[in-house]
Amino acid sequence: MPNYPKGERRRAEILEAAFDAFGTVGYRNASMVQIAADCGVSRAGLLHHFPTKESLLEAVLKQRDRIDNEQFFAGGTSDDGLDYLTRMVRLVEHNAAHPGIVSLFAVLSSEASDPGHPAHVYFQERYARSRSWLRRAFRDLEQRGMLRPHVQPDGLDVEFLSLLDGLQVQWLLQPDAVDMPARVRAFLSRVLTEVA
Amino acid sequence: MPNYPKGERRRAEILEAAFDAFGTVGYRNASMVQIAADCGVSRAGLLHHFPTKESLLEAVLKQRDRIDNEQFFAGGTSDDGLDYLTRMVRLVEHNAAHPGIVSLFAVLSSEASDPGHPAHVYFQERYARSRSWLRRAFRDLEQRGMLRPHVQPDGLDVEFLSLLDGLQVQWLLQPDAVDMPARVRAFLSRVLTEVA
Repeated sequence: MPNYPKGERRRAEILEAAFDAFGTVGYRNASMVQIAADCGVSRAGLLHHFPTKESLLEAVLKQRDRIDNEQFFAGGTSDDGLDYLTRMVRLVEHNAAHPGIVSLFAVLSSEASDPGHPAHVYFQERYARSRSWLRRAFRDLEQRGMLRPHVQPDGLDVEFLSLLDGLQVQWLLQPDAVDMPARVRAFLSRVLTEVA
Repeated sequence: MPNYPKGERRRAEILEAAFDAFGTVGYRNASMVQIAADCGVSRAGLLHHFPTKESLLEAVLKQRDRIDNEQFFAGGTSDDGLDYLTRMVRLVEHNAAHPGIVSLFAVLSSEASDPGHPAHVYFQERYARSRSWLRRAFRDLEQRGMLRPHVQPDGLDVEFLSLLDGLQVQWLLQPDAVDMPARVRAFLSRVLTEVA
């Protein structure tokens, strides 16, 4: 852990314990008492940093997005659709070495399908945003004539995200049976005339 | 509800309540007391039919498989790969009208990625079986020359299942944004020379 001031270090430790707990037993089943015990802070110490379980969830999701973004935008940004998809493949490669990151989203995104879940709107918005970025990438590739002739671009955004999500579930259950990056590349090879 | 004897009817009512509870809040967070209350049986009545929460989970998963199988094998079976995939598309069409069925598996399969979950082995075995059936279907199609020339058959089993699982998560979150059967057909149209 970097050399943070004590309060920040404590906050980071709590976030790490919550990250693990939410990704293992889910948000609803995770207990604030257990999370506090896992990182050796008192209940009062936990509530000082995160007054409610919802606020802890929000912080964990923000951190997860930050990790993704740092990985995704390493080396700058561009409007190039092929570049975008290549970054996605790299992100999958990165996640394939970090089961905790994968598990957090796999567990929370399906748990959050219930409208009463505190992360329901977060995931609705997140998926809508991801679909919109992917539509832009596939549209760019279509305009540049880089989709195979029989490929319909409509819905590729939904399909690509579905593939990523579904791969995670199978991979978490049986890591040896599922090569996530290879499957994403194979999917793209049937869509594109060039390799992502 | 059909005209079952009282004990069977009671059992069916408990299963229905458990099906809803597991599909909404997950297995771990579901409460036996709440499930009993939801279907108006006493705690003793519930425990008479299902002595443990695990036994209730097992019965719910068996029922879910029975629903799938009845739908899938309606009209007999065959070794024809194209027929197999066409049945899968019909199953997706059927499930798209039954959110409860979709939600149960989406929530439980990701919750069960934790090795400590009582349905962990159930889902490992279920996915392994589904992959093996799909491999057989795609192999049959390959041998009959029905895969597009650039398509590699290896891994199509994993990809196809991932697509189904991931579509369910997005569809549960935003039904209007996701046409599950259309996306499955589009995926297959990029794999096959004929329409499934």
